[in-house]
Amino acid sequence: MTAPLRIGIAGLGTVGAGVVRILQTHRDLVAARAGRPIEIVAVSARDRGRDRGVPLDAYAWEADPVALARRPDLDVFVELMGGHEGAAKDAIEAALTQGRDVVTANKALLAHHGQAFARTAEASGRVLRFEAAVAGGIPVIKALTEGLAGNQMTRVMGVMNGTCNYILTRMESAGLPYSEVFEEARALGYLEADPRLDVDGIDAGHKLSLLAAIAFGTQVAFDAVELEGIGSVTIEDIRHAADMGFRIKLLGVAQMTGRGLEQRMQPCLVPATSPLGQLQGGTNMVVLEGDAVGQVVLRGPGAGAGPTASAVLSDLVDIARGNRLPTFGQPAATLRQARPAKAAVPAPYYLRLQLVDKPGALAKVARVLGDSGISIDRMRQYGHEDATAPVLIVTHKTTRAALDEAMAAFPETGVLAGDPVALRIEQV
Amino acid sequence: MTAPLRIGIAGLGTVGAGVVRILQTHRDLVAARAGRPIEIVAVSARDRGRDRGVPLDAYAWEADPVALARRPDLDVFVELMGGHEGAAKDAIEAALTQGRDVVTANKALLAHHGQAFARTAEASGRVLRFEAAVAGGIPVIKALTEGLAGNQMTRVMGVMNGTCNYILTRMESAGLPYSEVFEEARALGYLEADPRLDVDGIDAGHKLSLLAAIAFGTQVAFDAVELEGIGSVTIEDIRHAADMGFRIKLLGVAQMTGRGLEQRMQPCLVPATSPLGQLQGGTNMVVLEGDAVGQVVLRGPGAGAGPTASAVLSDLVDIARGNRLPTFGQPAATLRQARPAKAAVPAPYYLRLQLVDKPGALAKVARVLGDSGISIDRMRQYGHEDATAPVLIVTHKTTRAALDEAMAAFPETGVLAGDPVALRIEQV
Repeated sequence: MTAPLRIGIAGLGTVGAGVVRILQTHRDLVAARAGRPIEIVAVSARDRGRDRGVPLDAYAWEADPVALARRPDLDVFVELMGGHEGAAKDAIEAALTQGRDVVTANKALLAHHGQAFARTAEASGRVLRFEAAVAGGIPVIKALTEGLAGNQMTRVMGVMNGTCNYILTRMESAGLPYSEVFEEARALGYLEADPRLDVDGIDAGHKLSLLAAIAFGTQVAFDAVELEGIGSVTIEDIRHAADMGFRIKLLGVAQMTGRGLEQRMQPCLVPATSPLGQLQGGTNMVVLEGDAVGQVVLRGPGAGAGPTASAVLSDLVDIARGNRLPTFGQPAATLRQARPAKAAVPAPYYLRLQLVDKPGALAKVARVLGDSGISIDRMRQYGHEDATAPVLIVTHKTTRAALDEAMAAFPETGVLAGDPVALRIEQV
Repeated sequence: MTAPLRIGIAGLGTVGAGVVRILQTHRDLVAARAGRPIEIVAVSARDRGRDRGVPLDAYAWEADPVALARRPDLDVFVELMGGHEGAAKDAIEAALTQGRDVVTANKALLAHHGQAFARTAEASGRVLRFEAAVAGGIPVIKALTEGLAGNQMTRVMGVMNGTCNYILTRMESAGLPYSEVFEEARALGYLEADPRLDVDGIDAGHKLSLLAAIAFGTQVAFDAVELEGIGSVTIEDIRHAADMGFRIKLLGVAQMTGRGLEQRMQPCLVPATSPLGQLQGGTNMVVLEGDAVGQVVLRGPGAGAGPTASAVLSDLVDIARGNRLPTFGQPAATLRQARPAKAAVPAPYYLRLQLVDKPGALAKVARVLGDSGISIDRMRQYGHEDATAPVLIVTHKTTRAALDEAMAAFPETGVLAGDPVALRIEQV
């Protein structure tokens, strides 16, 4: 057995403590799989005194994570602090330039600085790994980068924010409005300190941008991700979508099209019986589509101490074994700068229109759709007791431009009560 | 870019031709991900004249796969011939001892000789990889060996024979008996030349034994897999199980218990709404459970040229990159010889009894269950027009021994028409 892999861990929250726990309880198992022991040399966190449920006395303590990253007695710096600027960024930069490999769970940091870090790592002959940054315990970075390396990837999709999926699932099962379930989730501690990271799709968008870079050999382009949160999803739409055989998910989709790279994170309808439609609660799912393999679906816990620590261990075992991959699967200099697709590929849409109850109302909205070149696949009108009636329409495939034209024209018909709702139906 | 990885391919059936096609069409993509080109040097197959849809003129031809394996101008020997004795075995042995790495899709061969090959490979400093041998295009070997390396695995399950899942799914959807769907599958070319490999669970059992070795750090023990095929599954049981909220799957389960390693491949009931229960047609699914990660589910195509070639490419790219793993994730000498568990862990069971229509019949079978210490969770009796009535029972958890005792005692009650049926309900 060769020399131990010596690591330093910055950040001892639930994930950091989870990594320490695995390395303490599974020392021999990890050594057998890694080909050598993995040893914690030093740790760093904000509060030295806090009880984290794992003994830390055997490790050196560094108050400053950058000082930890610079320690000459480390092989790997493990960054589990979070935050996409400041200490985490400084420490990773210091580690890479000082000859340490880096393992991080920090999707925000990589979404913003991944390309620069990939170059720094390669220039220094170091590796930067981030299995824990996307979809928690699901080994999706490995599956995509290595397991499907023989494929031209065609599309990558995912439900990658467990909190949003919890909220949408709970709205449906309990029949509660968004605002109420949002407060529940906050009380349960499911939301980030800044909840917009979750519910506006930012966190999931970070993850999507990392998957897209690997899948399509492009530079990380988080700024080009079209983001739409779940705040506008109503319980009515969840119910009506279910009536039509769909579920609403905060779904990320990345695909390379003739018009550029499309990256979207938005509430979409998916068939209720599909694997994505069946996904309940905080579980994550990633769908990987390649020209040779067809479709591979991965499902698992997207967060939590154990699952995230499991992903960190995967990276550490790889480094211990000498499996040294470029950050995004191919050399940073070969990653192309993708042109962002201006418009999403055509898709069917779900429309909900609240119509005033007078003769010819339906004909008027149907004419608007026809004028925009949109044909109707299915339509359903509900019985009603007040003066307006909900009408649901599933369109055939149409462009977003045609849809926007119709949405702009609907109010001119004078038969709508309230704003029309349009949600994309993703074909999965 | 460093020197190309030079490979030889033995076996040019659909999978072999699929590998050639990917390497021809995705030359640059593969080189970018592998860090160097992957070049086919020579090929071997039985019939040189056959048109395989890919040009082969650029490659040397070897009539004898063993001669191909011995060529000094190869880095990797790719075995895609099949068969667990004879040429495939000889060629792999030759390749490993002559200094070639080996990639194979041959589960039967590894299930029978994996341990010996792993030792040979290590003694020669070569690697032996087999992503394509289990669950086709799903990168499950990589997920288990590398992606979940930080976990003490607790259970591994899978639907890993697409043909059996096709047959069971089709029986349900078309309402046809086993024999008829079996003939359909044969006509469609879904069955192996020896169909027992499929329907008796042998092929899936091979795959399970390989997953178990990696998951539990044990020597491959295919002979210890408890095998039960799908030939005795009736359309009645499929329908009745559905009525009770279950689907019947040919499910492989491996788990380490206090009484040894349990490996079973048998028709089981799983909840119809679970990912396994939802699996239709020829798709495969593997469920990996570890102490840190919890449950990860992988789903994808289990066979076919593209998916299987995709898996072969994953191994080739790994080798090109220098990711050199021990065959079963840890050195062969450290794999323990697991004691096979004599009895499966307790589970609920589904029972179907055909009772003669006379007073007290139900009481008699209930008493038999009670006498064996088996308690009833749910029971359902169906209306009937003839002299016997089907009774379905879902038991609480019980041992197989208690169940066998009850099954032996049922006939003595004198109220049964036909043999009782018992199927395990796997908790997924």
